[in-house]
Parts: sequence; structure tokens; C-alpha cells
Amino acid sequence: MAEEIARTASASSSVLRAVLDADRVAALKRIYQFLKDGKDRILAANRADMAAAEKANVAGPLIKRLDLSKGDKFDTMIQGVLDVAALPDPIGKVQFANKLDDGLDLYRITCPIGVLLVIFESRPEVIANITALAIKSANAVILKGGKESFHSFAAISELVREALADTKIPSGAVQLIESREDVSALLSQDQYIDLVIPRGSNELVRSIKNGTKIPVLGHADGLCSVYVNEDADAEMAAKIVVDSKTNYVAACNAMESLLIQRSALSTLLPAIAKALTEAGVTLRATDEVLAALVAAGVESNGQALIVPAADKDFETEFLSMEVAVTAVADVNEAVKHINTHSSKHTDSIVTPSKAVAETFMSGVDSAGVFWNASTRFSDGFRYGFGTEVGISTSKIHARGPVGLEGLTCYQYRLLGHGQIAGDYVGAGGSKEFKHQKIEL
Amino acid sequence: MAEEIARTASASSSVLRAVLDADRVAALKRIYQFLKDGKDRILAANRADMAAAEKANVAGPLIKRLDLSKGDKFDTMIQGVLDVAALPDPIGKVQFANKLDDGLDLYRITCPIGVLLVIFESRPEVIANITALAIKSANAVILKGGKESFHSFAAISELVREALADTKIPSGAVQLIESREDVSALLSQDQYIDLVIPRGSNELVRSIKNGTKIPVLGHADGLCSVYVNEDADAEMAAKIVVDSKTNYVAACNAMESLLIQRSALSTLLPAIAKALTEAGVTLRATDEVLAALVAAGVESNGQALIVPAADKDFETEFLSMEVAVTAVADVNEAVKHINTHSSKHTDSIVTPSKAVAETFMSGVDSAGVFWNASTRFSDGFRYGFGTEVGISTSKIHARGPVGLEGLTCYQYRLLGHGQIAGDYVGAGGSKEFKHQKIEL
Repeated sequence: MAEEIARTASASSSVLRAVLDADRVAALKRIYQFLKDGKDRILAANRADMAAAEKANVAGPLIKRLDLSKGDKFDTMIQGVLDVAALPDPIGKVQFANKLDDGLDLYRITCPIGVLLVIFESRPEVIANITALAIKSANAVILKGGKESFHSFAAISELVREALADTKIPSGAVQLIESREDVSALLSQDQYIDLVIPRGSNELVRSIKNGTKIPVLGHADGLCSVYVNEDADAEMAAKIVVDSKTNYVAACNAMESLLIQRSALSTLLPAIAKALTEAGVTLRATDEVLAALVAAGVESNGQALIVPAADKDFETEFLSMEVAVTAVADVNEAVKHINTHSSKHTDSIVTPSKAVAETFMSGVDSAGVFWNASTRFSDGFRYGFGTEVGISTSKIHARGPVGLEGLTCYQYRLLGHGQIAGDYVGAGGSKEFKHQKIEL
Repeated sequence: MAEEIARTASASSSVLRAVLDADRVAALKRIYQFLKDGKDRILAANRADMAAAEKANVAGPLIKRLDLSKGDKFDTMIQGVLDVAALPDPIGKVQFANKLDDGLDLYRITCPIGVLLVIFESRPEVIANITALAIKSANAVILKGGKESFHSFAAISELVREALADTKIPSGAVQLIESREDVSALLSQDQYIDLVIPRGSNELVRSIKNGTKIPVLGHADGLCSVYVNEDADAEMAAKIVVDSKTNYVAACNAMESLLIQRSALSTLLPAIAKALTEAGVTLRATDEVLAALVAAGVESNGQALIVPAADKDFETEFLSMEVAVTAVADVNEAVKHINTHSSKHTDSIVTPSKAVAETFMSGVDSAGVFWNASTRFSDGFRYGFGTEVGISTSKIHARGPVGLEGLTCYQYRLLGHGQIAGDYVGAGGSKEFKHQKIEL
């Protein structure tokens, strides 16, 4: 069963990879139209999911997330398909070209990865987004969504297949699977599946990484830090720190650790700490930081918003109104602290000094290294990618917010006129390679 | 032990990533000088390896491969260090830049991957090459070489450490390990090691992939095909096919399967088959191809150079003077055959038709897709990369021959002036992003 699904996806990928962008766009427009016309059918299936969730005593906020009829959720979902269709074609872009010899030209060209296995949560609108991303990037996709939205997924996926019937996209290019058993069986199909993309919790990502040889594009924790250098403007520092921490505490790009230069404990820390506690943030501070706060008269007003830090606080993704605070000697110690404790997601420095910022950005080994900006900007939409496949904390292939480009790889195309290696030096002949860059 | 090695590498990487190219080049020149001055010491250690191999009854050709004193092997080895030093700096290159808003600029910049674990065979000169590649790309490296060259590795690695003592490169950036036990323990250090590069046999690569969660940059089989379209020039086709097969049969870019358009079985096949058998190649042919050869009077002259093919022959990496031959209806069937049977390494088409070649190249899912050229050109030196880290049959991160670029990833640097996400749409504010491409 799993092998058949994977083989079907692989065979479809072999056809899909050569389908032109115009035909991929036409298919996406057709999907948009079918979903639009099938609104009643989808919403009926969605009501069945909600009824089942109520019956199973699923929590109220979760049921609300399932509801496709709320506000403009449905229209936003189908508009997203058109938005992805309108993005530039990610396939067939020439990355570079080398003339190896006269009439022997090498091109490196973007191409689809092949077969994607995407495992996602229960929000029913996600399936339309992933389907659009896969088709736009000419990848075949196997979809597995959370079971709470199963009826909605099935209805959307049936409409997608109906829409694809009269297009250049092979019908096996988009397959929906139902059970967890299928997922674990598919994770062993590394001869057919090229990339697994888990979109959900850290636990989901970790358990998938443990169970497969297929490369996984997923994010682990988001343990982001802000470092405030002694020469920082107090107001700017407080603003960035508060936004990084409080703008959306459950986000992976929220700040979890605050580092402050030791020499600024009496000058900058009080204002920053005050701004944080006024915003309702609990500071988990080292002894040194605690002492500085007491000396400066910053108190937690009986709300216990300033408490001693434990070592593990600097390796904790709070995802709540809490932050670990420590002092460091200088930017070099900040870099060392971050490279040791952070999850290599996004870290920011506040300083007016270009030299200090450069030391920070070239030293910190994270996907995002920011200078005088909130960590919350680390996001595909804010980066201007038009859409987001996910956020990767891997250092291989794609890093940070991943746009459509993350669903591509490349091929080398060598265009010759009958040349053979045996005529060239190193393989038995005497001809020399020219190796001249071809300007594009 | 393994954890300490990995942690040392990780800490060294944190320093090394910020070292400027000029300082990395200076360190490589110093390594060159120390190896040059230490020639006697290295050759003495090398003689100890050869004596041990003789005592252990290692085969003659293998002992020859160990010998660093043969011809210009030593000089070539140390010259390679200078050659890598002279390559363009792969770090700090701006890949693209987006203006998110006034004074809020996003840059994507190449950076080192971090910590590499490189496992390689016994040729003693390889260690100098890998050390040079790692330092040039600002990556820390843990080296494990085949045990037959242990004394040579140890001598070279001691000289490298001595050379690095007075440079900007931290001493823990290059570490040599000895035992297989260390390797398996290191393969579980995924919190410190970012990439494993096995340079050796398929078996080595496969066993490593099975034993680690760390991404592996390695090649599996090289099962390359040449497809001859009916309109091909017979002489060109024969030349490309013979070179692809015979130029170096043990190479991963050698042809293992020959596909010929059915309509050309009587026109093109005889000349190609004759050229192959004259070169001493055994054709493992399907019934249909056998019949065509008999009809055309191509015989194997009693040498049994034309034999029936078994199905598995089309999935076999012969690495010898043998080739599996089959007929296909047209280019589309050739694409399908290759995508089903090949190892996605390199495949070539012979045809004068641009349209047919385009169908082939956009349909075949291989790292190299060649038009009228031998598969043997699939090689980092021939591609003009200056050096080769390895050849990747992965579709993630780096594909095909991998140059220094394969040892880099990227970071997003966001340069702001105190901006916070909360001021922008989508995060609670009303400011719109500008998202304008910054021309570089």
C-alpha cells in the first residue's frame, strides 16, 4: 500500500517535472475554480468534522480552528491558490553557466525535488496551500493531515483530483493518505520519496527525524536571543526586546533569552527590565542581574515578575511571557553564549556600532542574525517570499524561512557536439578545458 | 570522548566562522610550508605504513596506493593546499537582498556549515586536500582515514596542528580520530556535527546513512545511461557510447546502460555495437536487440561479447567492460526507463534535435543531463570547480559534483534601525512592507 502510493507519486513526478509553468498555472486556476464551485460540499464536510470533534469533546478553541465557514477563511484559502500561481516560476532558472570548451557548455538549472511527503496539522485550509506550492514547484506530493479535519481534507482533495483531470498534471501528483500507519510505512520509502516536510509541533518533527532516512525539512525549537551592547540606545533596546518577547509569545521567532553587556547593567538594564515587567513579562534573572535590578530599584511590585534563573532557563523555549536574562562581558561572550545555548534560529543585537554588529553577525551561527531589529521579522511573508513552505532550523539545503525555492534542487545540463572525455587532459587526451564563465 | 571531540570542533567552528579569508589563506600557506619542510618526517611515517601493510600481506596494488614517495605524489599533494587557498572565498557572498522597508534591509549571505565529519579511504594524500577544503570554507573538521595510512595521517595531522599554532585558526578546528568506535560514537553527536561526508565505497556511504541522524553528503551508485535517438549521427553516437563506457570503467560516471530507439535498431545499432565489441565491451542485450544484431550480421566472433540480458542488468553498476542494452519506443520511454532504473547520477542523449534533447533533459531526474556529450564529463574538475568535495547523488543541498560551495550554507542578515514587528500589518500594526529587490 505505502509502496504503491510512493511509486505512483514517483511516476507522476517523472511526468510533472517537465510540465511548463503555464500549464501548472492553468491547473492551479482550475483548482481555484473547482474549490470555489465546491464550497457547499467542502463546508458540509467541514461541519461533519466539527460535529465529530464536538462529540469527541475536543476543546472549544481547537474546534474553532477547524471551522472553515468563519469570516473570510474560505475565500482566503482559495485566494491563496491564485497567489501561489502568480509567483515567478521557480523551475528552469539558470543559476550559473560555464563554458568547458568551444561548443561544450555547462548550465546549472533549478528543477523540482521530486516527491514530497507533507505531514501537517488539523487546520483544514493548509491542504490547499500545500497542494498549490507542490504543483507550482512541479513536485508530486503525498499529504497527511491531522485526523480532526479528515472530512474537510477528503472533500478538498477530491475536488483537486477532479480539477486536475483535464490538465497536464498527472492525477497521481497529489495523493491524500489517512492513517498514521501509512505515514510510518511511507517514511521507509526512501527510494521514491525525496523530502519529508512536517508542519506542526517540535515533537512531530523530532519523531519523524528519528524514523526515516529521507531528508527532513523541519524546524526544531525556536530559542531566540537578543543581545544588548553597552552603547545601545536604551529606548530602542527596550522597544526591540519587548516586541521580540511579547508580540506573539507562541511563535518560534519570539525571544527566549536576553543578554546584556555587564557594563550596561546599571545604565541600560533598568529601563529594559521596567519595559518588560510593565508588559507583564517575568524575568528569570541570574544572581548578578538580580543584584543590579535591586540596586537600580527595579522591583517586581509583589507580582513576582523578577525571579532567579536556573541554568536550564537558558535552554528553554518558554513560549510564554517569560524570559531568561544574563549578563555577558562583551559581544564575543554573547556570540559564544548564543552558539552554545540557542537553537540557531534567529538572534539579534542592539548597538549603533557597525564593527560590533559585524562581529556578532559573522560569529553567530544562526539562520537569522539581526542588527537593531526585532527577532519577530524572521518570517517568510515578512522576508518577502510571497509564501512560506516552513521555517527550517536545518543547516543543509534550506535555512530559515523557506519559500518556493526550498522545494527545488538543480541539475547540470551539459550541451555538447559529440565531445568525449578521452580527448581531454586527465582522461587520456591532450585537449585543455577552457573553463570560462558564461555571462547570463 | 566522542562528545568531547565533537564539542571541541563545535567551539572551534564558532571562532573559525568569523576568521577572514586572508587569515584562512595565510594558515593554508603555513600548512604548505610545514608539510614541505616536514617531508622527511611524513615519508618516514609513510614507510612505516607500507612496512605494516606488507607484513599484513596487503595486496600489491593497494600498497602502491599508500606510497607517498612515488613520482610527484608528495609535491602534488602539497601543491593542492596552495591551489585550494587560491580559490575565491566561498564565505560572505551575498546571494540576494530585499529591502523590507526603508532602513530595513535583508541580505542572504553564504556562511560555513559548521562542523564536518569526513570519513575517507587510505590514500594518504587525501587528508591534506580535505584539511585545505575545510579551512578555506571556515568549517571545523573531524577526520577519520583508513587505518592502512594511519602513521602518514598522524604525521601530516601533527604538522597541520603545528602550522596552525601561530595562526587565527583555532587548534581544535582540525582533529584526527583513529578508531572505528570513535566514528560510530561521533555519528550520534548530531547536536554538534552538521554534516557527514563519506569519501569511499558505496558500502561505506550506505552504512553511514543507516547509522546517523546527521545529514550525509555522499554518493550512492553511479548507474548512468546513454540514449541514442533515431536521428543521431552514427559516428558521434558510437564515439560517445564507447567513451562513456570504456574511458574509465571503475568510475561512477561510466555508462552502465545503453538505450536505443527501436526504429534505429537496424540503422544505428550495428555500428555502435561493433565499436563497443571492438573496444572489448560485452553487450548484455534484450532479445529484441540480440535479434537485431544477428539480423545485421554483428557477431561476437566467438568471444561471447554479445549475451542475453537479465532484468537486473539494468539496475547493475558493472564497473567493468559490460553494458546492458535495450530498445525503447522514443525519448519519452527513454526518460521513463531512466527515471525508473538509473541512480539519478548522469544520463546523456545523442540526437541533433533540440526539441528531443529538451524533452530528455527536462524529463530525466538526474544530477547531470547531457546532450551529445560523454557521461564521463560529470566531474568537479571537468566542470571547472577547481576542486571536488565529492559527488552527491542526494537531491537535497548539493547535487552532482560538489565544489567548495557545497561546504557552505547561508544566513539571513537583517539590518534595521530599531524596527519592531508590532508596527507592521500582520503583527498588530499598520505599516506595509515594501519588499523591493536590492540590486547587488
